[in-house]
Amino acid sequence: MEINKETITQWLKTLQDSICQSLESEDGLAKFKEENWTREEGGGGRSRVIENGKVIEKGGVMFSAVSGKTPDFLFKEKEHSVSNNTSQDTTFFATGVSIVIHPQNPLVPIIHMNIRYFEMSNGTKWLGGGIDLTPHYIVDEDARFFHTQLKNVCDKHHTSYYPKFKTWADDYFYINHRKETRGIGGIFFDRLNENEHLSFEQNFAFWQDVGRAFAPIYVALMHKNKNNLFTQEQKQWQLLRRGRYVEFNLVYDKGTKFGLETNGRVESILMSLPANAGWIYDFKAKEGSEEANTLQKLKKGINWI
Amino acid sequence: MEINKETITQWLKTLQDSICQSLESEDGLAKFKEENWTREEGGGGRSRVIENGKVIEKGGVMFSAVSGKTPDFLFKEKEHSVSNNTSQDTTFFATGVSIVIHPQNPLVPIIHMNIRYFEMSNGTKWLGGGIDLTPHYIVDEDARFFHTQLKNVCDKHHTSYYPKFKTWADDYFYINHRKETRGIGGIFFDRLNENEHLSFEQNFAFWQDVGRAFAPIYVALMHKNKNNLFTQEQKQWQLLRRGRYVEFNLVYDKGTKFGLETNGRVESILMSLPANAGWIYDFKAKEGSEEANTLQKLKKGINWI
Repeated sequence: MEINKETITQWLKTLQDSICQSLESEDGLAKFKEENWTREEGGGGRSRVIENGKVIEKGGVMFSAVSGKTPDFLFKEKEHSVSNNTSQDTTFFATGVSIVIHPQNPLVPIIHMNIRYFEMSNGTKWLGGGIDLTPHYIVDEDARFFHTQLKNVCDKHHTSYYPKFKTWADDYFYINHRKETRGIGGIFFDRLNENEHLSFEQNFAFWQDVGRAFAPIYVALMHKNKNNLFTQEQKQWQLLRRGRYVEFNLVYDKGTKFGLETNGRVESILMSLPANAGWIYDFKAKEGSEEANTLQKLKKGINWI
Repeated sequence: MEINKETITQWLKTLQDSICQSLESEDGLAKFKEENWTREEGGGGRSRVIENGKVIEKGGVMFSAVSGKTPDFLFKEKEHSVSNNTSQDTTFFATGVSIVIHPQNPLVPIIHMNIRYFEMSNGTKWLGGGIDLTPHYIVDEDARFFHTQLKNVCDKHHTSYYPKFKTWADDYFYINHRKETRGIGGIFFDRLNENEHLSFEQNFAFWQDVGRAFAPIYVALMHKNKNNLFTQEQKQWQLLRRGRYVEFNLVYDKGTKFGLETNGRVESILMSLPANAGWIYDFKAKEGSEEANTLQKLKKGINWI
């Protein structure tokens, strides 16, 4: 396909359709509800939210394509700095699909996926994305499966990508004040254009494969774990882990900050928050427990494969 | 009393004692648990946390007195800018008492109080503080009582203080992305030294009165509402309001940001978060309901008296 705003937008909407179908099918009960919204400054989105399913308690598969005057902070923040132009000179276009799924069963992991395309009127453009998994209880076999799948997607395009983007995910999905990772990480990348390894077109093909990888990976993890029996204590632990998820999203996540600061649609941005979450003062997991085992593995730099 | 680091610290600890006694007495079941902690860079605190009471579900009355090299951002942020010195030159000392109480009963309001004293080795010093109320359901009579009490405290010292500090609270306790106030506000002030109205010593007396006002005001609100019967729907609404409280504290609250960025004690800082909170996608209150009535009143500039 020719790569331009229109074709990317269309491809993302088709991807959204296909992911929603796969998730509904594995859930077996709930259906996505759709809302189309427009943004005053330009563009809009198609939000799809699923609630109170058999497997999924709350989840969103959100498509958006927005445009307007490039926000100043894209020029001010060093790490986002893209040129010496001031924002007065340029307009931007950004489109993407963002997913967060919070399952009912604490033995099924939380997952997040995002792929995004950004361009400016001055010709700058890039691809970004990532998938990361947040098991309430880390199961080594599932962690190995998850990372192996991501490595396969990366290796198909360039062998440097998995190690590089895996490290990037460890650093990005990190709750600094807790000194713990959000989960077992995954891959994360940003500002991908042509580089020493691949052309923009080749990177675009990689980016599409990341998007395509989401549904089969998560459906497999849902399917394997959705009928596992759990206790009330495990449900309570799930609330605490969701509390950490809320802390990450509200304190650190750049997508959330970008959205809230650029007058994005609040309900779409904060669909990433769970139906409920909990905080117990100074909670300590019992030594040797499954909870303590999980906490010990919320660290950067673990080779899950 | 002579006003210096030692006497202020001692007075704050005595205030903490007295507030904990009043709250325990009105709760009638739970007792505060104490933890003393020290901070690597200097100072420490005495945390008092109460959980699973008859009236209070989760609450903290936290004393801290910390010191060290003045953090850079105190010089960088314009609104905090205090001199042209760089932080290399100065050390700081900060002490205060911070309180957040989340009640069991959704008909009892959430309350927050903080008073703080800050000084630097270059001679700069100031007082800050505030009390604000977050009713899950706004009751006009209680809102009037709360604001009248605060106005009385202010008026005793200077008649300009209540209107000024009430407006400041409206602006501070504001969830910008929701375009709603956290609750019914209260008073908020910062960087108070001598001013056109009062000397530093007179302002210190005002600051002490704010601290003393907390317990009688909140005990009255607990007492009046704690035995009111509530429904499961009201409990569900409480979870959503607590979700907003979490959003404010993690996205906007400066004390929380300061604490997390200066390597503060995470469990003390985040004791402000409720035992549990909830998010429902795009929740709309029924027209004419008590919930809709409360939402309509989460606005700046309301004269509650």
